[in-house]
Amino acid sequence: MAKISFLWVGKTKEPWIKNGIEIYLKKIKHFVKIDVHTLKDTKRDGRSREASIVDAIPRDSFCVILDERGRSFNSEAFSKFISQRLTQPPNHIVFLLGGPYGLSPATKDKGDFILSLSPMTFTHEMARVILLEQVYRALTIEKGLPYHH
Amino acid sequence: MAKISFLWVGKTKEPWIKNGIEIYLKKIKHFVKIDVHTLKDTKRDGRSREASIVDAIPRDSFCVILDERGRSFNSEAFSKFISQRLTQPPNHIVFLLGGPYGLSPATKDKGDFILSLSPMTFTHEMARVILLEQVYRALTIEKGLPYHH
Repeated sequence: MAKISFLWVGKTKEPWIKNGIEIYLKKIKHFVKIDVHTLKDTKRDGRSREASIVDAIPRDSFCVILDERGRSFNSEAFSKFISQRLTQPPNHIVFLLGGPYGLSPATKDKGDFILSLSPMTFTHEMARVILLEQVYRALTIEKGLPYHH
Repeated sequence: MAKISFLWVGKTKEPWIKNGIEIYLKKIKHFVKIDVHTLKDTKRDGRSREASIVDAIPRDSFCVILDERGRSFNSEAFSKFISQRLTQPPNHIVFLLGGPYGLSPATKDKGDFILSLSPMTFTHEMARVILLEQVYRALTIEKGLPYHH
């Protein structure tokens, strides 16, 4: 069964963003199976931190890592990208977002695709809710459902 | 005195976004004079709606209209753009964001600059808080202040 996993480093601290994340997770659940993994963020000991991030990427999944220097899509193209990935084996997309200290180049190399939401740098917490809104939008576009702004 | 105005069409309805907007407006106020104008959004009577939007753009200002088909910046370039505009006459930037029905091509022509936050389509409410965060980031970059994530 098709599935989307969200893997993020560090808890969401801003209450308003937490709220937005909950709203969009609920909406997305109507369309597809999802799960969310929040990894511990540790400032020190970079190597073990990164190893635990890489270990958390589910095997047999298509891993999309978010980075402003990645490839960008408009919302229609992003919808096609998601629906193709959900209908092709392994039918499992993982979105990995770094924490305040980002991700190492070695970790970024583990991704199957680097996605940019914008050339602008967003806070890592805001990037979560922006991504969720885009995934929700992508699923409504794919189903031909009305969804306005 | 340098000033930034935010002009948006229609009230912010989502409580979590309202909350985020308040947080960033407060942060931005530490750096620069700002004001916010919320214009009425009316579904019908397109022509008078658009005329009232155009009328609300302060004269003697540099008007930046947000549209995903506009020009994009990374956060550093956006910071330079803002600081140049604030230090050059008329020392007044206006950011105009459309409502759920967007802006007409004629209204978009009234802008001095069309800015894209991303090639992706965001909800018009989320675009408000994303813009505010970028303006805040731009001002901290200009002042050389630490602001991470």
